Amino acid sequence: MKQPIIVKKFGGTSVGSPERIRAVADRVIKSKEQYENIVVVVSAMGDTTDDLISLAKQISLTPSAREYDALISTGENISAALVAMAIQEKGHDAISLTGWQAGVKTENIHSKAKIVSVDTQRIQNELKAGKIVIVTGFQGLDDFNNIVTIGRGGSDTSAVVLAAALKAPVCDIYTDVDGVYTTDPRVVKKASKLNEISYDEMLELASLGAKVLHPRSVECAKVNGIMIHVRSSFSDVEGTLVKEDSKMEVNRPVTGATLNEEEVMISILNVPDQPGIASQIFSTLSAASINVDMIIQSTEQNKTNTITFTVHQDDFAQAKTLSEHLAKQLGAKDIQWDTAIAKLSIVGVGMISKPGVAAKFFTALGKNNINIKLISTSEIKISCAIDKQEAKRALALVHSEFGLDNNA
Amino acid sequence: MKQPIIVKKFGGTSVGSPERIRAVADRVIKSKEQYENIVVVVSAMGDTTDDLISLAKQISLTPSAREYDALISTGENISAALVAMAIQEKGHDAISLTGWQAGVKTENIHSKAKIVSVDTQRIQNELKAGKIVIVTGFQGLDDFNNIVTIGRGGSDTSAVVLAAALKAPVCDIYTDVDGVYTTDPRVVKKASKLNEISYDEMLELASLGAKVLHPRSVECAKVNGIMIHVRSSFSDVEGTLVKEDSKMEVNRPVTGATLNEEEVMISILNVPDQPGIASQIFSTLSAASINVDMIIQSTEQNKTNTITFTVHQDDFAQAKTLSEHLAKQLGAKDIQWDTAIAKLSIVGVGMISKPGVAAKFFTALGKNNINIKLISTSEIKISCAIDKQEAKRALALVHSEFGLDNNA
Repeated sequence: MKQPIIVKKFGGTSVGSPERIRAVADRVIKSKEQYENIVVVVSAMGDTTDDLISLAKQISLTPSAREYDALISTGENISAALVAMAIQEKGHDAISLTGWQAGVKTENIHSKAKIVSVDTQRIQNELKAGKIVIVTGFQGLDDFNNIVTIGRGGSDTSAVVLAAALKAPVCDIYTDVDGVYTTDPRVVKKASKLNEISYDEMLELASLGAKVLHPRSVECAKVNGIMIHVRSSFSDVEGTLVKEDSKMEVNRPVTGATLNEEEVMISILNVPDQPGIASQIFSTLSAASINVDMIIQSTEQNKTNTITFTVHQDDFAQAKTLSEHLAKQLGAKDIQWDTAIAKLSIVGVGMISKPGVAAKFFTALGKNNINIKLISTSEIKISCAIDKQEAKRALALVHSEFGLDNNA
Repeated sequence: MKQPIIVKKFGGTSVGSPERIRAVADRVIKSKEQYENIVVVVSAMGDTTDDLISLAKQISLTPSAREYDALISTGENISAALVAMAIQEKGHDAISLTGWQAGVKTENIHSKAKIVSVDTQRIQNELKAGKIVIVTGFQGLDDFNNIVTIGRGGSDTSAVVLAAALKAPVCDIYTDVDGVYTTDPRVVKKASKLNEISYDEMLELASLGAKVLHPRSVECAKVNGIMIHVRSSFSDVEGTLVKEDSKMEVNRPVTGATLNEEEVMISILNVPDQPGIASQIFSTLSAASINVDMIIQSTEQNKTNTITFTVHQDDFAQAKTLSEHLAKQLGAKDIQWDTAIAKLSIVGVGMISKPGVAAKFFTALGKNNINIKLISTSEIKISCAIDKQEAKRALALVHSEFGLDNNA
């Protein structure tokens, strides 16, 4: 018997050319054997969004967010219409719907809105009429009938939100890799594909820089109990299931390792040791919309503290200026920075019950002469800032140390 | 004192590059000195629509009209957002609205819908808030919330319809020529620019192939009493006013001459002379959505008629097949065709009151050994089908004969 409904999302590479779009159509049509109703969510073709951004930049370096959204949302309209045409060309009924036609309502914020609700009436009607429904990812409508985008990579989130709204238990996310790997296969050749991964592990990996899934989509899948199947649009092999961790391979303490080379480190030296100092520093950065990632405070001998933190490299100039002001204001000695760091992380739900994971991690780095500059941990993650030059070597040896290497 | 409102439409060439878009912004901003409220209607940038059509063709040669509309309407969304950004970049308030956001409602037909109404509430609100409003041409929304396009060149019509809905007395149409000419200046060097032309003359010229204005836009302007100002987006010179003919230069019998080289001629020979035959032929063609232009019926000696007509060259194959069927069905002898014809026309409201215009036209052709194959006339127009090879020479000599040559 057929299953009632599935949502399938195809990324930019998957719809990157007329040929690829035809392949998407074939795959969608084939899945009619398995599902009564199919909703397809698409990203913009290949580089379309980047091309539109480049056009905008030629007009204005600081375009209004509303017009920017109106502009860059058009890429998904194009790919959705083309996918619908390709399915029709192969003799099946299909219809493309923009975000607003599909009832996707967002917050009244541009460029990074959250989806607040989906009125699925139109989608349901089209499905009942026997159509495969293609919905543009990445976009919705605010309360004032303005077109809004939901942030880069937001099409993953669009797909999971639609799955939740349509009560689809599974959301297939088709991409240009065949699943989630223990680490980036382009960096570590021995990376191995995971059959399953828990929401929490996937969230950590996604937040740490593994780009296969957008973190918000994982969060949304977790909250709504949607299983995400990350798989290749170029082959039929099973991908990776992102799901609750009850049936996970908890035998191994570490599920994946990842590298983020986009952060920089700033230290405010010899800040007087008084209550409220940290609050003042990080409130100031937060007020400037600067996300701080790792934070460490070390106490010096002269009753002062050195406060060190990392921010995204795009925020470096602003964070540096603010830190200099803060240093003066707080009577601190000076600031220092290091723009050549990398954050190496290991992730695994198993590490909660397996002591010694951190020690093993630090030892592996130490015995290979890799200096640790900062440490930050969560229940299922340990991150270290290390020298950027050592990053790839460190990733490979940690990957190996925790038994993640592919033995095939 | 400022005038209350104007609608300005910019075509594809006028918004063809970031540089051109900035020039449009300058021009629009400058007109704030003259007008309280400005609504701008834009076409897609340069070749965008053609590129989208080419993409569609790579997917399907017979795409569904709904998806085709969803696809090709995106070009206007892009240019509208960019024009809004360019105006904002220069320090003025602006907002882009898609057809549906601007309240443009169309018939429930795809690719060639007529606009049935405009709910101007949103536009009025944005104007009241002090914004220059940029509206996408070429598109609207049907009763079922589907995006609909209104036919190639439809942005002219969008602009005039908006002018009518907003009670703007004038609609500026910016294009890549500086006005309406007595004939195509690329063909006849001595073509001269008209300061004014009546709606009816403009309608005939537009229908006959002068591509400067879309005929539907002229019709709509006539019905609503909107004056169209056709002018160049590359210079500040006054263009051509399209308006009621009360103040027209009716001294000259002919206002313009034009050539249409896209028609072909088909004859059904020796059709029995019975009532209802013509009706049967043209009903059959009409049922196949083939537009017939010129028709001539000549009576032969043997009590049969030869029926000759012209159709657009794109419809030739289908019209020929249908004619062959009809010939058999009606007991006609055979069919003939000529794909190397051109239709030469002269247009002028003055010809009603000036007898001898037709005679002068035919004589000019005759004494230059140009054979006339078909003739068709209206109150303000005379058209002849002639040999395509003679077409440009014939146009130039008729242009000269009726005193249209530019003496500058």
